[in-house]
Amino acid sequence: MTTTELADRILKGDRRALARAITLVESTRADHRAQTTQLLEALSGAGRQALRIGLSGTPGVGKSTFIESFGMMLIGQGLRVAVLAVDPSSARSGGSILGDKTRMERLSREPNAFIRPSPSQSHLGGVARRTREAIALCEAAGFDVVLIETVGVGQSETVVSEMSDLFLLLLAPAGGDELQGVKRGIMEMADMILVNKADGDLKATATRTCADYAGALRLLRKRPQDPEGFPKAMTVSAVEEHGLDQAWAEMQALADWRKQNGHWDANRAEQARYWFDQEVRHALLAKLEAPQARSEMDHLGAEVGAGRLSPSAAAERMLQALAQI
Amino acid sequence: MTTTELADRILKGDRRALARAITLVESTRADHRAQTTQLLEALSGAGRQALRIGLSGTPGVGKSTFIESFGMMLIGQGLRVAVLAVDPSSARSGGSILGDKTRMERLSREPNAFIRPSPSQSHLGGVARRTREAIALCEAAGFDVVLIETVGVGQSETVVSEMSDLFLLLLAPAGGDELQGVKRGIMEMADMILVNKADGDLKATATRTCADYAGALRLLRKRPQDPEGFPKAMTVSAVEEHGLDQAWAEMQALADWRKQNGHWDANRAEQARYWFDQEVRHALLAKLEAPQARSEMDHLGAEVGAGRLSPSAAAERMLQALAQI
Repeated sequence: MTTTELADRILKGDRRALARAITLVESTRADHRAQTTQLLEALSGAGRQALRIGLSGTPGVGKSTFIESFGMMLIGQGLRVAVLAVDPSSARSGGSILGDKTRMERLSREPNAFIRPSPSQSHLGGVARRTREAIALCEAAGFDVVLIETVGVGQSETVVSEMSDLFLLLLAPAGGDELQGVKRGIMEMADMILVNKADGDLKATATRTCADYAGALRLLRKRPQDPEGFPKAMTVSAVEEHGLDQAWAEMQALADWRKQNGHWDANRAEQARYWFDQEVRHALLAKLEAPQARSEMDHLGAEVGAGRLSPSAAAERMLQALAQI
Repeated sequence: MTTTELADRILKGDRRALARAITLVESTRADHRAQTTQLLEALSGAGRQALRIGLSGTPGVGKSTFIESFGMMLIGQGLRVAVLAVDPSSARSGGSILGDKTRMERLSREPNAFIRPSPSQSHLGGVARRTREAIALCEAAGFDVVLIETVGVGQSETVVSEMSDLFLLLLAPAGGDELQGVKRGIMEMADMILVNKADGDLKATATRTCADYAGALRLLRKRPQDPEGFPKAMTVSAVEEHGLDQAWAEMQALADWRKQNGHWDANRAEQARYWFDQEVRHALLAKLEAPQARSEMDHLGAEVGAGRLSPSAAAERMLQALAQI
């Protein structure tokens, strides 16, 4: 299939073509990279935008169940939903853990849903680039909402928040006074905190936990681009499918407000500049990954370790070597 | 003064020559960099090693008082002590905050002490390189102990621990059950935790805090290169100069054990390889700091922000431009 044919099919919303294109963007082969650039160029003219929702949460919080229930609700409203995952650790297990179709059984059978596991890449930089390109493909394929899930390992939350229009933090009800060890930096990224499992025996605990987080969010500085009341904490039950419509209404209200006030476009522009900067840095450091560069690094590293060369002198030699490679 | 003369004076322990040489290594001028390389080369032959002690602590813990009392005790034992500081934030205030001689009045008057504030550099990479080179100069000048102080901003603890033989964490007595918000990563770096201010009204609290930290340290995995009982928590009083000699005895015991078991040399070799790797990466990214590169980044960044170029396409153009610069 030519790139033009592939682009046409994606624009018609063909999920198979979309899956194929994502496989293409996940490839590191030079010819595939060139095709990807062509494809994205061809699709960018369509100017389609989805609501990109980043989603993070502590382990065991019921993220897959939430995505399933939330996704089904959106589909019930006539929307098309794509789910992508950012999991730099998945390389170890040879594929995705989250975003797995078997964990979202109903959603994966829906014609208006598209679920794609995290690519098996060990570098977060590689995962980030592929995920951004996959988002662009989903938008071109006419999806209304793109959910980008992160496992919350290392820097993955920052990566996801830098490619999302809204960022959700999903938390479990917790007794005690500890705020589940959620880092302040993650709290500051969140537009909304959803306390899941507000059902059965945990309902009262969830309500208390939600109040605790609402209090914690009030202590953070309100972002100037947001209306009163944001960032916001709410309770939901993914299992009982309760509170999801209210949460969605709040997300839409926030998105509309930002669009009307120019913050939406400004945010996307800033994100694009951020990724441009990241890609340049990533590409400069990628020179060190070439086989010849690696073997020179190993050789000089051994000299440094043995005390025959200082780190600075070895670095100078390495840069001279790189200029020849 | 020629580089050879400077090297000779440093090897004789001349503090003025040492100060002058550190000013040289703090310079970014190309000719100064070349002289630095020559100087370090000339000095490396001496093969002198100091005990490099990294020191971090929460604000208000009494770090300057500790360094003063601890340093005076070492000098009382006939040792020569150098104090360096790593503070990437000091660029803002135009110089050092910590390591300031006025805060270590007695120590700064001692002929066997040398105190050098943090260089005014905004990049942690730059500060790290200068500090490593300053350590090498202090070792060549015959100092027995080099204390490297960090303010604990951002990544500065990692930087200091990667250039230290031992890493100390200085903490204040704390009521309550909170462990003063010390990050797990910092705890894991520490060879010893010293709970300061174990004097007067705070003595009992300090003992309890010390027991809490001793318990927390037991939960961390023991490093295979360490003898039983390490990492260790102890109480000290910098003001009453109490417990400092015991702490010093423990540090020496740990250092001796590591030397006898080959871990000392292995650690220094690993650190040297780490800094080699960091310097290569730093140098590759430094290409972006050239004025021409900056203006091209700004230009392409604006195109990306305006949506006229994708981040990837702009990054490719930037790399082509860098090849010409």
